[in-house]
Amino acid sequence: MNQAQTGAPMRLGVCYYPEHWPESMWADDAARMKALGITQVRIAEFAWSRIEPQPGQYDWGWLDRAVKVLGDAGLQVVMCTPTATPPKWLIDQHPDILAVGADGRPRRFGSRRHYDFSSPSWFEASQGICTAVAQRYGQHPAVAFWQVDNEYGCHHTVVSYSPAAAQRFRLWLQARYGDIATLNEAWGTVFWSMEYRSFAEIDPPIETVTEAHPSHRLDYRRFASDELVRYNRMQVDIVRAHSPGRPVAHNFMQMFNEFDHYKVAADLDVASWDSYPLGALEEMWFAPQIKARWLRTGHPDFAAFNHDLYRGMSRLPFWVMEQQPGPVNWAPWNPAPLPGMVRLWSWEALAHGAGCVSYFRWRQAPFAQEQMHAGLHTPDNQPDLAAHEAEQTAAEIAVVQATGLDGAVRPRVALLFDYEAKWLFEIHPQGADFHYPRFAFGYYSALRSLGFDVDIIPTDAPLDGYSLIVVPPLPVLPQGLAQRLAHSGAHVVIGPRTGSKTVNVQIPQHLPPGPLAEVMPLRVWRVESLRPNVTEVVDASALNLPQLNALHWRDLIEADAAVEILGRYADGHPALLRHGKLHYCASIFDEAGTRDVLAHIAQSAGLAPQRLTDTIRISQRGGLVYVFNYDTAAYDIQGVDAAAFVVGAATVAPQGVAIYRQAAPSQ
Amino acid sequence: MNQAQTGAPMRLGVCYYPEHWPESMWADDAARMKALGITQVRIAEFAWSRIEPQPGQYDWGWLDRAVKVLGDAGLQVVMCTPTATPPKWLIDQHPDILAVGADGRPRRFGSRRHYDFSSPSWFEASQGICTAVAQRYGQHPAVAFWQVDNEYGCHHTVVSYSPAAAQRFRLWLQARYGDIATLNEAWGTVFWSMEYRSFAEIDPPIETVTEAHPSHRLDYRRFASDELVRYNRMQVDIVRAHSPGRPVAHNFMQMFNEFDHYKVAADLDVASWDSYPLGALEEMWFAPQIKARWLRTGHPDFAAFNHDLYRGMSRLPFWVMEQQPGPVNWAPWNPAPLPGMVRLWSWEALAHGAGCVSYFRWRQAPFAQEQMHAGLHTPDNQPDLAAHEAEQTAAEIAVVQATGLDGAVRPRVALLFDYEAKWLFEIHPQGADFHYPRFAFGYYSALRSLGFDVDIIPTDAPLDGYSLIVVPPLPVLPQGLAQRLAHSGAHVVIGPRTGSKTVNVQIPQHLPPGPLAEVMPLRVWRVESLRPNVTEVVDASALNLPQLNALHWRDLIEADAAVEILGRYADGHPALLRHGKLHYCASIFDEAGTRDVLAHIAQSAGLAPQRLTDTIRISQRGGLVYVFNYDTAAYDIQGVDAAAFVVGAATVAPQGVAIYRQAAPSQ
Amino acid sequence: MNQAQTGAPMRLGVCYYPEHWPESMWADDAARMKALGITQVRIAEFAWSRIEPQPGQYDWGWLDRAVKVLGDAGLQVVMCTPTATPPKWLIDQHPDILAVGADGRPRRFGSRRHYDFSSPSWFEASQGICTAVAQRYGQHPAVAFWQVDNEYGCHHTVVSYSPAAAQRFRLWLQARYGDIATLNEAWGTVFWSMEYRSFAEIDPPIETVTEAHPSHRLDYRRFASDELVRYNRMQVDIVRAHSPGRPVAHNFMQMFNEFDHYKVAADLDVASWDSYPLGALEEMWFAPQIKARWLRTGHPDFAAFNHDLYRGMSRLPFWVMEQQPGPVNWAPWNPAPLPGMVRLWSWEALAHGAGCVSYFRWRQAPFAQEQMHAGLHTPDNQPDLAAHEAEQTAAEIAVVQATGLDGAVRPRVALLFDYEAKWLFEIHPQGADFHYPRFAFGYYSALRSLGFDVDIIPTDAPLDGYSLIVVPPLPVLPQGLAQRLAHSGAHVVIGPRTGSKTVNVQIPQHLPPGPLAEVMPLRVWRVESLRPNVTEVVDASALNLPQLNALHWRDLIEADAAVEILGRYADGHPALLRHGKLHYCASIFDEAGTRDVLAHIAQSAGLAPQRLTDTIRISQRGGLVYVFNYDTAAYDIQGVDAAAFVVGAATVAPQGVAIYRQAAPSQ
Repeated sequence: MNQAQTGAPMRLGVCYYPEHWPESMWADDAARMKALGITQVRIAEFAWSRIEPQPGQYDWGWLDRAVKVLGDAGLQVVMCTPTATPPKWLIDQHPDILAVGADGRPRRFGSRRHYDFSSPSWFEASQGICTAVAQRYGQHPAVAFWQVDNEYGCHHTVVSYSPAAAQRFRLWLQARYGDIATLNEAWGTVFWSMEYRSFAEIDPPIETVTEAHPSHRLDYRRFASDELVRYNRMQVDIVRAHSPGRPVAHNFMQMFNEFDHYKVAADLDVASWDSYPLGALEEMWFAPQIKARWLRTGHPDFAAFNHDLYRGMSRLPFWVMEQQPGPVNWAPWNPAPLPGMVRLWSWEALAHGAGCVSYFRWRQAPFAQEQMHAGLHTPDNQPDLAAHEAEQTAAEIAVVQATGLDGAVRPRVALLFDYEAKWLFEIHPQGADFHYPRFAFGYYSALRSLGFDVDIIPTDAPLDGYSLIVVPPLPVLPQGLAQRLAHSGAHVVIGPRTGSKTVNVQIPQHLPPGPLAEVMPLRVWRVESLRPNVTEVVDASALNLPQLNALHWRDLIEADAAVEILGRYADGHPALLRHGKLHYCASIFDEAGTRDVLAHIAQSAGLAPQRLTDTIRISQRGGLVYVFNYDTAAYDIQGVDAAAFVVGAATVAPQGVAIYRQAAPSQ
Repeated sequence: MNQAQTGAPMRLGVCYYPEHWPESMWADDAARMKALGITQVRIAEFAWSRIEPQPGQYDWGWLDRAVKVLGDAGLQVVMCTPTATPPKWLIDQHPDILAVGADGRPRRFGSRRHYDFSSPSWFEASQGICTAVAQRYGQHPAVAFWQVDNEYGCHHTVVSYSPAAAQRFRLWLQARYGDIATLNEAWGTVFWSMEYRSFAEIDPPIETVTEAHPSHRLDYRRFASDELVRYNRMQVDIVRAHSPGRPVAHNFMQMFNEFDHYKVAADLDVASWDSYPLGALEEMWFAPQIKARWLRTGHPDFAAFNHDLYRGMSRLPFWVMEQQPGPVNWAPWNPAPLPGMVRLWSWEALAHGAGCVSYFRWRQAPFAQEQMHAGLHTPDNQPDLAAHEAEQTAAEIAVVQATGLDGAVRPRVALLFDYEAKWLFEIHPQGADFHYPRFAFGYYSALRSLGFDVDIIPTDAPLDGYSLIVVPPLPVLPQGLAQRLAHSGAHVVIGPRTGSKTVNVQIPQHLPPGPLAEVMPLRVWRVESLRPNVTEVVDASALNLPQLNALHWRDLIEADAAVEILGRYADGHPALLRHGKLHYCASIFDEAGTRDVLAHIAQSAGLAPQRLTDTIRISQRGGLVYVFNYDTAAYDIQGVDAAAFVVGAATVAPQGVAIYRQAAPSQ
Repeated sequence: MNQAQTGAPMRLGVCYYPEHWPESMWADDAARMKALGITQVRIAEFAWSRIEPQPGQYDWGWLDRAVKVLGDAGLQVVMCTPTATPPKWLIDQHPDILAVGADGRPRRFGSRRHYDFSSPSWFEASQGICTAVAQRYGQHPAVAFWQVDNEYGCHHTVVSYSPAAAQRFRLWLQARYGDIATLNEAWGTVFWSMEYRSFAEIDPPIETVTEAHPSHRLDYRRFASDELVRYNRMQVDIVRAHSPGRPVAHNFMQMFNEFDHYKVAADLDVASWDSYPLGALEEMWFAPQIKARWLRTGHPDFAAFNHDLYRGMSRLPFWVMEQQPGPVNWAPWNPAPLPGMVRLWSWEALAHGAGCVSYFRWRQAPFAQEQMHAGLHTPDNQPDLAAHEAEQTAAEIAVVQATGLDGAVRPRVALLFDYEAKWLFEIHPQGADFHYPRFAFGYYSALRSLGFDVDIIPTDAPLDGYSLIVVPPLPVLPQGLAQRLAHSGAHVVIGPRTGSKTVNVQIPQHLPPGPLAEVMPLRVWRVESLRPNVTEVVDASALNLPQLNALHWRDLIEADAAVEILGRYADGHPALLRHGKLHYCASIFDEAGTRDVLAHIAQSAGLAPQRLTDTIRISQRGGLVYVFNYDTAAYDIQGVDAAAFVVGAATVAPQGVAIYRQAAPSQ
């Protein structure tokens, strides 16, 4: 492990919209892309109205010429299917394409993603346009890579409550449960007389007087996710049929959890994602002071989390399909990245294993919704800061790849991440701020602050090779996972509420932690959620740790005598427990507490946790170590020989990057 | 007064759902109920889909057997009509049963209370199921008590804007006003050309461009309340016809004010209510720091307020039909009661005159919306803390009843509480936080902190026997009330805005306080509402009181020379006035100010106010005094002979209860 | 300039609703109006249901008598068209009159302004009632003045999304763009495949999945404003045809920006507005502590801003058509004005050039939505404070007019104010709190604190005669404005984002500041918006100014070498630039910073800025100086001879007014 591998690609790309600009500019654009060191060019993902301006009448001329210009310049084209933006004539022909909101009203044309995954008209129309594009460019020599659709689910478009969705949901339920009695039993519809006599009686779970049944709601979310999986697979199959041998990707979104990305990625060759560290900071759960602190850099662990997540679900090296190059337009506030950040983010992606970082977009568009979204060039076609930073990155990539040390990322620490957990806690929170992604990110950030590379993995991933596995609150433990964790050889840290639900959203027969109790004999006999202005303190002196602050939640636990109590609340209830290598946290600890607990357990696991400041992050890929400085001050790397530096030096400037050769194999 | 009465019942009950559990468990459940000291078992209020699984096909077998099991164990059954949860087949047959929201859209099936009080189909279907259940069990020897429906109005279901409601509203208006000219005059529709030419032109007051007419809105609220009254009376009449001699109750909700509870209760034998002190704390108006302070005990005056309210409107001793036994599921956050609180709450109910405290529920259900709602037992059928506390309470009841001193609650202090006042201030607030229940509770809490037992009474209640009567802001003074207050013999404290409206929501001819001016010659010539960050100080040195802080509101008053000015604002306007025994407050004073004013007036009234800390509350029922300790520290009762204690002792543990014999009649 | 003019009118009026009161009261009301010094009486603007109680059946009797009573008392009647409140029978006849909200649902009858400017039925019905009223009273000797409709747009009623509006929007687009290809190009619909094949394909921009196209949205706002202009012109034309020679006004609202008031005012003789300083304070953007500070006075610059705005757009002297006389009913909280404030507000209006101040209303109505809105008299017909203050004001007017110095307001400072700017920043904010009216008001308030009289002017106003012109952020610079500013001779201060958009909402070809760059060679190559908890400091030591605090926004600028950099951010970017007399601010400075910058530039412009406290304001009209004291303490005017005072004296009481003769012409 941690030995260098060679041959992994490190490429740069860009998103390009020839249809937005005069054809006379294309050749110059292509030449300058090449000159900057860009090799991949994504096109056409929103171009349906230009490809098929009238129903059934295709206009390939402009796109043929655009592809030729790019190919002639030595660039590789990432061709897209344009299904994220069905044109107006199609919507007018088939109004049932429009998804229906939770308010029971159909959405309208005029932005994007105005479609319903369950609409038969839409499915057919999508097959048509995908086939047309794939046939046209599937064998084109300049086309090296595909992207299907664009940002599935963006703007809350995974779930629709249309009649078509309702009809397909009933079929989905029938397939899952077989007969209605089984469903009634599985859900527990006897409660509140919600029993159904047939699948035909079941509607989408909206506009109810008070909350709808949680099993009903979770199944609707699963169904919606499966509809998306089916739709994606249709597109992938069409592209593969007409363009064999070329990787097919989709560009996922950052910390977006409304469908099961593992399932969609299983049908792709490449999981790519769109990285907007500043926009994300504004839009996510972070407190105002955190948003101000990382205003122009983004949170140091946010892009990294997504890199590690998508790396794991990608068969080939993952991509950053869209990289923020400057201010964006879509967050409530849109500050500019500090000089150097675009380079830093690019190297951060590569250090986490990215095969390509593709900037969004070549040139800022002067019109429409995203006219305030920066690009590598300003609308008047002058290079913006990001163009220079991309160019520098391209040059540095050549240096790094020349070392032959640009191998794989091989973490010894894993974090389990599960999409259904997010939906379940959202549907059935019990505490209004029990926010799964926030908690998972909290554990991740603590691990990164200890200097660890991290794999983010699904519940069915192999667990061997890890020394430390962190399981954020995982309500439904799949069959066998508890045993696999116990026998993985790793130290395991498990969050509260784990094993608290069956797959049908019931409380397990012998109470939480459900199947986990087979390997860690606990009984969670009571739980309580805590409002934000309440903190419980935990005495962790058994571990020589300072007092921990517990937030959000308490599992009250009866533990078998064989289980060690490592920490207790003031009222004596266990707060942190150990059984063999398994550790159970009965609450969410605050940032410092999480870090202290994980550092202690990592040490026990034979790892060597560091104590990085919150502005310094370290990654290892192949035989190289990457240091990222998010600080406003320079950072001095200690104990590394000056000759070891491949990029930068021991003093890392603010927003700087340093890359050095690993002194010796770490074990 | 305050003399002991004997024979008042003190019983414990439980809510039980045999349909949720295997029949094989029933007998054991019943035996253990009995063993705990429980005697009353409420069943079937959500069981329609099991009673009538197909239209017109009843399945009585299971319910017959359940009743028999309970009866055989010596338990008394509280049988319910199951109308809170109409089954899906009924909704599909009659979609007009679904109520329509203020957004003009019908609600959907999938939770509970999905019905419209004005729907003729629903009225007929309700008659059918109620008759069927009442016929089946009306004479059953195990059935001793009835509950009709469940928590009327829960989840904002009092008011519907359906076509059926609109139609019945027009009839209601016609009955109230006779002809349209009278309505136009009563409402003042000449304003903004809102005049109607016939009742048929009048619609529900929703979706208007700006606020709808306040008289229109208040009448719609009155109409909706009356629809509920009519619906309840239908059920009560059916049950009484088939089950004569058995009390009929409904279980009201805590501090729920969307219909006129006095009117509904007038048709019942027993007013019962559902007590969830922790859930209420989270959901009500309390500030975050108050919510944190009473996190695991609830506010010491909240359950008491409801006890005193429902006691007054119940012909037989009121019940707590559902008592919180542990964490609930439905508040934003759901902490656990401290050990001892379930016992404390139970005794608190009994001390305030409850005839029965019934725990919700026997065993936590492992499925559906309320799976996180604790019971006396966990889902794996182990006793939870509350089971032990119930058992202790049952044993203590026996001791208390053996004293023969368990008589009636006989307060000398009354608080007027009015439902229409709440609606009117909500419709016509003039100050955005003029919140009637909050203000009424503020006066109540101050009275309790002075050690007083309190009757909460409607505006038409007899006033004799009271030494102190508090009238929170009462916009509409019913005919004769002012005179009755003046001649009651009691000292009376009256809040601002009293008498500020006529019954049709107009300003009284000679301005506020309207009819009150006949007995207290004031003229409120101007009013102003104050935003939350504004406080006005009041000089109350005439009463030797410290400066008062006035909030929310100012009545600016011209007073007859005969009226004494007891307190003035900094700008000289009267803030507190006295005329004989009548006292008028021109503002809402803060907590300390309210307490100081009431203490002073109580003293004048010949009462002996104590100064309890906010954690200690005292009640008297019959010949016994009950002390409740909400504190985290023990409390020492002074001056009571050790031999006087029936339960507990002079040192009351945190969350503890002590009960002692009253030394001598207080007067 | 600043020389006294004589003969300008200063009158008082009142809003009166004879239909609300018994006819027996009318003559006494009229006599008392006269006695108070009131000469103008507005009537009938909500009286449709009394004028036409049944379709086509007019009842003129009562209104004829009311007009006669007023005329006989020597009062002049302001007659209104009653279109703000169509009666129920009309709505039932033509339900399409109801506007449709952004939720796609029609509004309902039951308040006011329930009409759609684009409805053909409504247009026709309005022509009918306006013609009827204008024919009846157009030549009546007592009718001296007209008001059409009432408060256009109140309660968000400018924009409707009805089918009728959609249809007229398509025609509007066709007229603007000619052919669909031009529209597609102008908007940039190629983005996200939003291209249209015909105007018929275009819908209102609502219920889209994410934000609709900004050009589409801005054009919809322009269209809606134009619909209102067309509707107003129809009314004005009818009134003028039947009542030649009498001025026609509309009563606009305070700081209301949902339509282009300049365009509507161009069709009127008099722009009047409705002044509610306390209600406005509560409802506008001010922070809670500001709302508490000016609780009972209103913000000292708020009414003034509106006076200066409407003065500029009024052909004849503007009116305050409704003046707040006491507490209102419609703000979240409704405090009472301090004694003296009604007089102060009245004089403030007159000092800013008002021709009439008309109090709303004669007597508080005891019924309906506004029953808590004070008047000159209480509902029991007693004079309220405002009646006395009006009477005092009337007496003082006589004194002032007797000086012969009551001429015109002649500012040397102008502020550009633009309605489309507000819409554009609302549609396309880029920073969530980029609030145009707030920023414009910030500049205005700073200018007033420096003692300046200010003209608020549209972008096409003549610029000559000004020494200082302030341009708040103006995204679209009309053709020629940049040159006119540069050659105006004035010092010009320009806010950030000026010139940042073309008229079609695109980024200008050479980037912002677009056409401004022709006269001030800048290139805004990047922008960033800043969240509220972020402040950037600016070093303005080049101007000997203290450090400035920059908020909300940064333009990052490349400036030609000829441009002076007067202030820089900590990272070196220019924050304040000068080129000749043109000054460009790259951010919004805070209150102190804005004042410092404007004071400095004003000094350079040859003006003599004063440093008034925030409680003192000064105005000059004709040969008189008006001093307004918003303080709680008295204010001493320095250096004015006692003999110069026309009203008041050198010591101005709290909430007081002083008026004195200007010592000598200022230039």
